[in-house]
This record gives sequence, structure tokens and C-alpha cells, in this order.
Amino acid sequence: MSHFEQELAHLKEKLLTMASRATAAVADSVKALVERDDDLARRVIDADNAIDQLEIEIDDLAILLLSKAPLALDLRLITMAMKISHDLERVADEATTIARRSIELSQEPQLKPYVDIPRMATMALEMLRVALDAFVNRNPQAARGVVPRDTDVDQLNRQLHRELASFMVENPATITRSLNLMVISKCLERIADHATNVAEDVVFLYEGRDIRHVGKASVA
Amino acid sequence: MSHFEQELAHLKEKLLTMASRATAAVADSVKALVERDDDLARRVIDADNAIDQLEIEIDDLAILLLSKAPLALDLRLITMAMKISHDLERVADEATTIARRSIELSQEPQLKPYVDIPRMATMALEMLRVALDAFVNRNPQAARGVVPRDTDVDQLNRQLHRELASFMVENPATITRSLNLMVISKCLERIADHATNVAEDVVFLYEGRDIRHVGKASVA
Repeated sequence: MSHFEQELAHLKEKLLTMASRATAAVADSVKALVERDDDLARRVIDADNAIDQLEIEIDDLAILLLSKAPLALDLRLITMAMKISHDLERVADEATTIARRSIELSQEPQLKPYVDIPRMATMALEMLRVALDAFVNRNPQAARGVVPRDTDVDQLNRQLHRELASFMVENPATITRSLNLMVISKCLERIADHATNVAEDVVFLYEGRDIRHVGKASVA
Repeated sequence: MSHFEQELAHLKEKLLTMASRATAAVADSVKALVERDDDLARRVIDADNAIDQLEIEIDDLAILLLSKAPLALDLRLITMAMKISHDLERVADEATTIARRSIELSQEPQLKPYVDIPRMATMALEMLRVALDAFVNRNPQAARGVVPRDTDVDQLNRQLHRELASFMVENPATITRSLNLMVISKCLERIADHATNVAEDVVFLYEGRDIRHVGKASVA
């Protein structure tokens, strides 16, 4: 392995470390919500700085490597690593928002059993996992499969939004809690968006074809 | 001017075109809200595809140029152009969300005179303008000045959020409209976030110093 190849491997490794931390943050934030565990929520918030730091390290390394990259595929790999790390940083930010809102929610009785939110979290994290596996295994076909799944998460978010809005109308005492749950649901919807971005970047990386904005559905 | 310099100038030019379209989209979406102008809102939504397309063109050109960039500053310029174009694409997306919500809002009587929302829009657009001027004029100092202004927009968003939440409690008939206005306020808050990202990228571009995530305030 040349020195350049070693550095490239190091870049990928850092990205995967960042991915596993961001993924853990999301899983923990939803666990904190469901189990009303404020300590866990605070740990998610505290861990965010280290994830932010990884994004900066990845960018620095990427810019250093760009000047030495001999092949078009390497250039794509390096620039996609920067894009993916930015999406992962945002995923971790969404996790801290979920954690903050969970802490607020645990100050009042639980509004309803949480069914849809853990389901959305599972779906979004699974999308992210498949996209990242596709990155590691150079499998653009698997990455393509992630993109249409975003619609399912969008739909669950809209459904939950409607349900919470009707709670509010029926009982104004639920407004604060419903708003917090709407924010959390929207965070998960956005995590699925980031997973979709990662998947699209993986397709572009290995196929050289840009599948972004193709038949983009209305998002709001 | 060498061929490479010409291509670099072309990249910058494309980025500025994208910036002016994204900025116009935001201004028009808020105008559509205030003047209850559904046609204008629809034009904002329709114009989004062309902005998406510009992001793809900028990425393609950037990756092409990366392989020829002789200087570290050029590498930074090209990668920052990619980052900035991504933020601008998101700004335009927020504008389409504002436009969609404005169309929904114009189907019911106006909830209250819109004072804070146009103010937030003016602040966010001004932040974006200063950040982009700093990019053009190679003025990292001006870009630095943008970052702390994000707090003011965050504060207005939180204040409006509280006000709308109390409307909901007092009169459940206002819930749908209040929720739409909350989404619009959040969109403007996020446009200010993107302007901050652009400003931070401009500082990094010309100073080589990364000021992201320094004393990052809680965002949600």
C-alpha cells in the first residue's frame, strides 16, 4: 500500500468512526425518550462535540489528500467523504435535538405510548446502515435501494403530525407535549433525508452518475 | 488568464448565479406569504428545479477542476464552492417550504399581522448577503461578523414559537395556522443557519482556520 493509499484508508476509517458515533447518538436519543432517561439524553448532548470535531478532522485530511489524488475515483471518494461527514454531523445534531426535547417531555406525564417514533427511528437508522454498508462494500446498487424508502418515513411523519394536531385541538393541555413530539418526528424524518443523501453520494461515487433531485418529491 | 483560471472564474460565477436565485426565492416566498399571493408562491416552487440543477453543475465542474488545481488556496476555493452551493440548495428548499405553507395559510383568514416573520427574513437574507459579499471580496473579517448574528434570529424564532403556542392554547381554531407559521419561522431560522455556514466557509477559505463548532449554541 502506498502512502497515499494508507492516508485514504485512514480517511475512510475516520468516516466510519463518525458514522458509528452518529448512529449511536440517534439510537440513544430515542432510547432516552422512550425510557424517559434524562441521563442518557444528556450523554447524547455531551457527545456531540466529539462528532463535530471528527467532521473538521475529515475535512482537513480530505483537503490534504485532494492535492495528491491521482485518479478521478479518488477525487470522487475524497469529496464524497466530505459530503457524507457533513450529513453525519447533521444526523448527530438531530439526535441532540431529540435528546433535548426528550428531557422536556419527561417533565410531564407521557402523552401516549410511543409506537411510531421508535418505528421511524428504526427505519431511518436502517437506511443509514445500508447506505454506509454500500459505501464500504462499493455497492451502488444497494445504495439505490435506500432512496425510495425515504417516502415511507415522510409518510409516517405526516401521519404522526396529523395525529398530534388533533390531540392539540381536543385538549389544549397536550399542546406543549404534542409540539415536542412533532419536533422529534421531524428530526427523524430529516435523519432519513440525510441517509438518502449518503445513499445518493455512494451511487455518484461508484457509478459517476448523479441521481440527486431526480423526481424529487415535495418535502414539506 | 490561464484556462484553469477561466474555469475557476466560471465556477465562482455559477455559484453567484445560484446565490442570487436562492436569495430571490426566499424573498419571494415571504412576499407571497405577506401578500397572500398564491401565484408567486407557485413560481417559487417551480423555480426550485433550476436551482437544484445548478448545484449538480457546480459539483461536476468542481470535481473536474480539483484534478487540475495547483495551489492549496484553489483546493480550498473549489471545495468551499461545493459546500456553499449545498447550503444554497438548502436555502432554496426552505423557500419552497415557506411557499407551500403560505398557500395553505391563504386559505384561511390571516391569524395576525406578520411583523416578526418579515423581520426574520430580512435578517437572514442580510446575513447571507454579507457572507456572499465576503466571499466575492475575499473579506474573511466581514464573514466573521455574520456568525454571532445567528443568535438574534434564533431568539426571534423562539419568541414567535412561544407566542404561537399561546394562541393555540387560547383558541384551538388557530392550531393549523399557528403550526404553519411555526414551520415558516423555523425555515427562516434555518436559512440564517445556512448563512452562518457560508460565512464560516468563507473564513476557512481565506484564513485556513476552521471556526465551525466553536462555542456552538444549543440549536433546538
